[in-house]
Amino acid sequence: MSIPYPFSALVGQDEMKRAILIAAVEPAIGGLLVLGDRGTGKSTAVRGLAALLPKMRAVHGCRYHCDPDTDAVCEDCARLKAAGRVKVDQWPVPVVDLPLGASEDRVLGALDLERALSQGVKVFEPGLLARAHRGFLYIDEVNLLEDHLVDLLIDVAASGENVIERDGLSLRHPARFVLIGSGNPEEGELRPQLQDRFGLSVEVATPREIDARVEVVRRRDAYERDPAAFAAQWSKADAQVRRQILQARDRVGCLAVEEPVLRRAAELCVAVGSDGLRGELTLMRAARAMAALEAATEVTLAHLRAVAVMALRHRLRRNPLDDTASGERIERAVAELWA
Amino acid sequence: MSIPYPFSALVGQDEMKRAILIAAVEPAIGGLLVLGDRGTGKSTAVRGLAALLPKMRAVHGCRYHCDPDTDAVCEDCARLKAAGRVKVDQWPVPVVDLPLGASEDRVLGALDLERALSQGVKVFEPGLLARAHRGFLYIDEVNLLEDHLVDLLIDVAASGENVIERDGLSLRHPARFVLIGSGNPEEGELRPQLQDRFGLSVEVATPREIDARVEVVRRRDAYERDPAAFAAQWSKADAQVRRQILQARDRVGCLAVEEPVLRRAAELCVAVGSDGLRGELTLMRAARAMAALEAATEVTLAHLRAVAVMALRHRLRRNPLDDTASGERIERAVAELWA
Amino acid sequence: MSIPYPFSALVGQDEMKRAILIAAVEPAIGGLLVLGDRGTGKSTAVRGLAALLPKMRAVHGCRYHCDPDTDAVCEDCARLKAAGRVKVDQWPVPVVDLPLGASEDRVLGALDLERALSQGVKVFEPGLLARAHRGFLYIDEVNLLEDHLVDLLIDVAASGENVIERDGLSLRHPARFVLIGSGNPEEGELRPQLQDRFGLSVEVATPREIDARVEVVRRRDAYERDPAAFAAQWSKADAQVRRQILQARDRVGCLAVEEPVLRRAAELCVAVGSDGLRGELTLMRAARAMAALEAATEVTLAHLRAVAVMALRHRLRRNPLDDTASGERIERAVAELWA
Amino acid sequence: MSIPYPFSALVGQDEMKRAILIAAVEPAIGGLLVLGDRGTGKSTAVRGLAALLPKMRAVHGCRYHCDPDTDAVCEDCARLKAAGRVKVDQWPVPVVDLPLGASEDRVLGALDLERALSQGVKVFEPGLLARAHRGFLYIDEVNLLEDHLVDLLIDVAASGENVIERDGLSLRHPARFVLIGSGNPEEGELRPQLQDRFGLSVEVATPREIDARVEVVRRRDAYERDPAAFAAQWSKADAQVRRQILQARDRVGCLAVEEPVLRRAAELCVAVGSDGLRGELTLMRAARAMAALEAATEVTLAHLRAVAVMALRHRLRRNPLDDTASGERIERAVAELWA
Amino acid sequence: MSIPYPFSALVGQDEMKRAILIAAVEPAIGGLLVLGDRGTGKSTAVRGLAALLPKMRAVHGCRYHCDPDTDAVCEDCARLKAAGRVKVDQWPVPVVDLPLGASEDRVLGALDLERALSQGVKVFEPGLLARAHRGFLYIDEVNLLEDHLVDLLIDVAASGENVIERDGLSLRHPARFVLIGSGNPEEGELRPQLQDRFGLSVEVATPREIDARVEVVRRRDAYERDPAAFAAQWSKADAQVRRQILQARDRVGCLAVEEPVLRRAAELCVAVGSDGLRGELTLMRAARAMAALEAATEVTLAHLRAVAVMALRHRLRRNPLDDTASGERIERAVAELWA
Amino acid sequence: MSIPYPFSALVGQDEMKRAILIAAVEPAIGGLLVLGDRGTGKSTAVRGLAALLPKMRAVHGCRYHCDPDTDAVCEDCARLKAAGRVKVDQWPVPVVDLPLGASEDRVLGALDLERALSQGVKVFEPGLLARAHRGFLYIDEVNLLEDHLVDLLIDVAASGENVIERDGLSLRHPARFVLIGSGNPEEGELRPQLQDRFGLSVEVATPREIDARVEVVRRRDAYERDPAAFAAQWSKADAQVRRQILQARDRVGCLAVEEPVLRRAAELCVAVGSDGLRGELTLMRAARAMAALEAATEVTLAHLRAVAVMALRHRLRRNPLDDTASGERIERAVAELWA
Repeated sequence: MSIPYPFSALVGQDEMKRAILIAAVEPAIGGLLVLGDRGTGKSTAVRGLAALLPKMRAVHGCRYHCDPDTDAVCEDCARLKAAGRVKVDQWPVPVVDLPLGASEDRVLGALDLERALSQGVKVFEPGLLARAHRGFLYIDEVNLLEDHLVDLLIDVAASGENVIERDGLSLRHPARFVLIGSGNPEEGELRPQLQDRFGLSVEVATPREIDARVEVVRRRDAYERDPAAFAAQWSKADAQVRRQILQARDRVGCLAVEEPVLRRAAELCVAVGSDGLRGELTLMRAARAMAALEAATEVTLAHLRAVAVMALRHRLRRNPLDDTASGERIERAVAELWA
Repeated sequence: MSIPYPFSALVGQDEMKRAILIAAVEPAIGGLLVLGDRGTGKSTAVRGLAALLPKMRAVHGCRYHCDPDTDAVCEDCARLKAAGRVKVDQWPVPVVDLPLGASEDRVLGALDLERALSQGVKVFEPGLLARAHRGFLYIDEVNLLEDHLVDLLIDVAASGENVIERDGLSLRHPARFVLIGSGNPEEGELRPQLQDRFGLSVEVATPREIDARVEVVRRRDAYERDPAAFAAQWSKADAQVRRQILQARDRVGCLAVEEPVLRRAAELCVAVGSDGLRGELTLMRAARAMAALEAATEVTLAHLRAVAVMALRHRLRRNPLDDTASGERIERAVAELWA
Repeated sequence: MSIPYPFSALVGQDEMKRAILIAAVEPAIGGLLVLGDRGTGKSTAVRGLAALLPKMRAVHGCRYHCDPDTDAVCEDCARLKAAGRVKVDQWPVPVVDLPLGASEDRVLGALDLERALSQGVKVFEPGLLARAHRGFLYIDEVNLLEDHLVDLLIDVAASGENVIERDGLSLRHPARFVLIGSGNPEEGELRPQLQDRFGLSVEVATPREIDARVEVVRRRDAYERDPAAFAAQWSKADAQVRRQILQARDRVGCLAVEEPVLRRAAELCVAVGSDGLRGELTLMRAARAMAALEAATEVTLAHLRAVAVMALRHRLRRNPLDDTASGERIERAVAELWA
Repeated sequence: MSIPYPFSALVGQDEMKRAILIAAVEPAIGGLLVLGDRGTGKSTAVRGLAALLPKMRAVHGCRYHCDPDTDAVCEDCARLKAAGRVKVDQWPVPVVDLPLGASEDRVLGALDLERALSQGVKVFEPGLLARAHRGFLYIDEVNLLEDHLVDLLIDVAASGENVIERDGLSLRHPARFVLIGSGNPEEGELRPQLQDRFGLSVEVATPREIDARVEVVRRRDAYERDPAAFAAQWSKADAQVRRQILQARDRVGCLAVEEPVLRRAAELCVAVGSDGLRGELTLMRAARAMAALEAATEVTLAHLRAVAVMALRHRLRRNPLDDTASGERIERAVAELWA
Repeated sequence: MSIPYPFSALVGQDEMKRAILIAAVEPAIGGLLVLGDRGTGKSTAVRGLAALLPKMRAVHGCRYHCDPDTDAVCEDCARLKAAGRVKVDQWPVPVVDLPLGASEDRVLGALDLERALSQGVKVFEPGLLARAHRGFLYIDEVNLLEDHLVDLLIDVAASGENVIERDGLSLRHPARFVLIGSGNPEEGELRPQLQDRFGLSVEVATPREIDARVEVVRRRDAYERDPAAFAAQWSKADAQVRRQILQARDRVGCLAVEEPVLRRAAELCVAVGSDGLRGELTLMRAARAMAALEAATEVTLAHLRAVAVMALRHRLRRNPLDDTASGERIERAVAELWA
Repeated sequence: MSIPYPFSALVGQDEMKRAILIAAVEPAIGGLLVLGDRGTGKSTAVRGLAALLPKMRAVHGCRYHCDPDTDAVCEDCARLKAAGRVKVDQWPVPVVDLPLGASEDRVLGALDLERALSQGVKVFEPGLLARAHRGFLYIDEVNLLEDHLVDLLIDVAASGENVIERDGLSLRHPARFVLIGSGNPEEGELRPQLQDRFGLSVEVATPREIDARVEVVRRRDAYERDPAAFAAQWSKADAQVRRQILQARDRVGCLAVEEPVLRRAAELCVAVGSDGLRGELTLMRAARAMAALEAATEVTLAHLRAVAVMALRHRLRRNPLDDTASGERIERAVAELWA
């Protein structure tokens, strides 16, 4: 009900905003890890972006607000579609918070105990993953979550499906969402293997310049005193972002990444020593989304360059002889290879 | 039923009393951390302040004693308001203790097992957070609580809403309260990240002067032997405090913090090295509340100065080369910057 | 049913006996910690004292045997009193042991499962705290209890009220008792913060003189062979103690502690470095009870002196450069200050 | 049903046998700790002794086989006795093993779930402590039991009463038994404080002489091949032991321990440095039982001497400068003091 | 429903593909351990292979899709077969993932709570092991599973039977599947004893050559953009693999391994120091499957050689003086012995 | 249903086979510990032996298949026997595996929940111990079991009775079985005290000679390809073993062990320093069984010698100055003493 802080009114934090836009255009990118100080607008940015997107078409009455225009729907919707009896609703893009203290049952969904006890039937009660379908799942302090839960969330985000094998239930439902985990590395790191499973990783920091800090506090104060008036001020800028995303989503399907660009991506991954091939795949997808956002007609080295750090930063091994931060090591390699 | 110790009869502890007044004027300040010896009147001060505040208007029959004059109400009250059928009661400002051994269920609220078992329906039974709505939640020995529970309480205090995702329940209700955590740093510290989430932090200590000690013991003895007579003695002073708070609450909405003052706040935060922007935001809000309490017409550097230590003390990193206490480091920076 | 060992027949252990008398006269003293060897009559003394006290007036039918002559009664008794329908019973002064292995449910009280299951109603089933109301709660080996349980017991003892927030229950009932914890420091210490919460602390030891040891064994043997005959032998001495306590209870309300004496107490506390103001408050209350026991008409330095060690012994910090036992450090300070 | 190995057929182990006889004559001695190698007949001796004792008179129908000739009976028996309607049965002296893996519920007794669920009433279902009433409770490997359970068992053995405060039950029933704990110190020691609570402590060892070893194996083989024939061979010797115990039980009530003997006991305890007064009390009781077993008319120094080691061995502090075994230190002190 | 990535379209990873084919031909080989980087197509390969196999004949209505052509069937099917009333269905070869967070109940199967509660009968509800019968059970990150669960899975895989002894259930059902565990040794190793229980072990790595990497990414992209078209491109190659497997399954039963070859296998095992005889047995079975895949008419040294590393790699002890990788040590021994 | 590998077809492992035969002749020997490499036929040997034994006479309808020819029967059978209404069935000698993951309930037996819930009665549901009665209980990796469970199993094996004190049940039933525990000492040792409770202990190892290894693999292959044909080949040899056991069982009751032989056994035990007298007792019993298996008419030193190592190996203390393996130390002592 309350009015979110406008996405466009965020001061600075360009890398984070770019990564969120990419994830909004290409959800297959596999989630976004935002590392850095508290109080730098991480949650605000996600909520702001979701609020500026248009409502989605959803199957009427579906517990997962399935998309009537794809085949990745739940069993009930599949039956409705087969029978040609789908009705369509409008549904706002969801942003779901994983609240601290939410039980695993509520995340995954579980047996509906009320109906089990009163009617003696086993019915599934959807959880937060279901609610996040087609939107954003935001986890603050992802590093404080248990590893196995993070792994599970990433699995679901990657497969777009929540597989339930518990309480005597055995079912699956679509759960396509952009997973956004934020954390402060000083409070304990994610295992490298978990980091690697996020598509993109960005770093945020409190601005050091007095002007920027005063600007943040001033806008925040203005927003808190009169949210509606503040939102009105920024509605034009937000509409511009909405258009940019929607047009990019249309375009991204048609953009091929040509072999020379793929070869450049592979060279970079080998040079910086990222494990596996997730680096290349992410570079390719992120560059394509970047190109789409810029309304480019082909994917170029410039697009690769724009996403190289966020796609690879969290995939490098610690080099004990070189304590340069990961971001700088990638930028150095980019400079040498693609000079 | 029993008569609390009058707020005005507390001997000394000026910083703590000032911080409690600020939090009473501006609950958005985000909670108060009181560190120091046991037996220095921490709990007494909170209880005394709540007792001198006038009763609040509350929606008749509402389980959360919602405020009929705002929109941040529970679903039932929202319906009543929409239907124009709100009746109003008087409700004393609650002070809720988190007793040692209270279960998480009782803090957050939980499924009403009695009705679930007897009537087969899922009804939410409000917890201590609901009871604390619009008042104070006092946690003695906050450092002995589990981190995740503290974090959760601060989250609720910050958002003003309790989000329930457990026992198959999925609901939210308003829970705006001033969180006051007390603790003795010798018994184990709060993680810096938790400290940082409290708005203000004050230190209390046993008075060292014989006169003050004798005075404390004498007043305590007088109070214990005849609480009613003792309270009568201090009722005038308490009425004065009540007036001060109520007038400040009226004024605080109209006080702007001008850019030069914001700039001074930012300079101080950069100088002492507080992470994020919580420092600035808290300085701004606390200085505004201070000005309102002093019936000032604008927020000045003097107000900033009066709240600088309590707003920043718990946000500094340990400096291994400088073991000056945090409070002194802030005062030194204030002296240098704002001389 | 069995006949307890007479209080007056205890050989030696004067400090412990004095402390128990003080606690019996002034329950607000806040509990008694008895440290020392097993088998030195700690439990025997408590049981013996309770047995010599006269029965108490109690509200007929009340599950907490509420005192009909005060207002600190349970809700049911409050209603009866308001309706003027209180009937009065005689009730022996309870001594409740916290048996090893008693569950937390039984200590605090809990939901009455039998009635919950059979009748579907939520009724509170009182626990050991309720049973100890107006008497003694004895915990052997208090150092083996979990900290949080000790803390909880001291909280209840201090507030005189048991607050229940669990099993979906939310109620409070009076629970005023003298908490007596015994322990052997060799088996693990209480945290200083817990020690500090006890009002008085005494040390007991096995007598070293052969005569005393033989006397203890002889009396014990006589008691075990014929408890009734043994009790008869000591009934006169016990009656004398009973009179002393009852008269002291009458007198203690009228004894003021004058400022010069308070000042001396404060000086001692500052000199020995006790934290907070609990030291002073306890000294004041204990000295007043001592004066009442001695039928004095005013509280003098001699009374302070008689209780100084037991009121402060457990409130001193370990001084690594001075390994004098706490008791001696206090006696030395008393000698210097009050010479 | 099976025939136990005859008590008299045990080869050697005189100290253990003497201690068991003393405990059988004077159960108030407080339990027996048997330390040493496995396979040295500890359990066999207890079972053999119980088997040779005559059946006991017990209240007909009583779940605790209460003794109709004392007042320490359960509530039901107390009512029957008051009504003069007691019928009497014969009951074999029980030997109860605490099986590894027995749950705490089964040891203490618990709510009868069957009746709670089917009839909705709270009935106590007696446990092993009830079954051991008036007999022996044997715990093999007592050092492997959790401390709190050992402590609880010793408490019950000492008080002769089992106090239940759990499952919403609150009751007590008589539970007088001789507690016999065996253990191998190499597998982990009992805490000194637990050792001290046992009345007597004996050590057993595998015989080192070939003749004795062969004799043990030969008798064991004979017993296993034909238990009935073997038992018949030793029935006369066992009858002799039975007479000795029964006569000693009659006599022990009339034997006073005179002050000079008590004084000698106290001197020894002081000399060897046993804590508390349990040493003296046990010496006195054990010497009296010894005198009764020997049909003496007074308790002499010789009787004290015969029980000195078993009564004190487990009450000495480790002396780091003197690694003489405890038994030898006591014997040396006896030799010096009572020479 | 979704179209899996074609087995034949995998780039490189020849050892892994060979091992999967061997396991598909000879399930008694005992499972396959795949170690190496994430993102190298481990899961893809298994899924691809299962998809190209023809449907299996299965007993109609059987909860374990038992094979109507063998005797290793469940009790119900045994009865149907005895009665000659078996009807036959077609069943796709299952690939079952052990999802992170699946409970032990769901893996093994458990009491059907719904029917137990509603109908009061004890019925077994099959778990994932039942579903995997006659197919593949894939465990990602097998090194993160608890040891006892891995051990249990290998036991079932080895015996082909799931034995249930829990929840008051006591039954067994056929569960023949190829167990494939993947893991990254950097995230924690399997205990050697668990490794040894897997039949084969292969290592996979990200390709280092740019060309291969680009090819992987290109094919992946093509597949993701149009799975159906991509699958059509590779259907011929997949059909070729299917024929190879089916023919090898027919042949493998007729291939004997002659004593000279067995002797060579034993010499190798002794030379490299593999414990037990699992090494020989696996070498024999794998070589036979290899020969069958190559349509050879006898098992030769060349077949042994082709499987030597994958059969023995995980059975060598660490040699602290020789840190050569296990694979190389085996190849060196092969070269020396069979030169 | 499946055909076990024939006992006689095992290659080598003579000591293990001898120990199994001894345990089959004299179950009172107290269990068998088999230590050594996996995959050396431990489980195979037990299963093979059980399969060649003839079916046993068992009381018809008895849940414990009680032996109608002894008195050690369950209560129901005792009643039937008293009433002379016993009917007799044939029952195969059971071999029960303790599956990894079996719950304690299923091992010991437990309350039959189904009947408790549906009919409100407390009925015991027998566990694996009941099923193993009169046969073999095989525990693979006994060193991975929790100590208390091993101890419990040995207790039951030693006493021949399973005593249930849980779930409000209190009963006992016969449970005489040969306990066979296998383990690999490299995966963690049994506590010496548990080892000592096993009667015999043998070591097995993978054969080092190529010929033996090839023979093992060859026989295994033949067995797996056609179990029935393979079993037929060895049926004569197995029948010979069956006759040997049955005749030995008849003879063993009549063989006395004369004192000179007992004396030699005792000398050996003293010489090697085995604790307690279990060593002698086991030597005596094992030598007698050995003599019976060899159809000897008296027990001689040769029989002692044949069982000395397996009876004592696990009862020696580690000698830090002599790291000779236990087996060799015993053989050396045998050579010196009995030369």
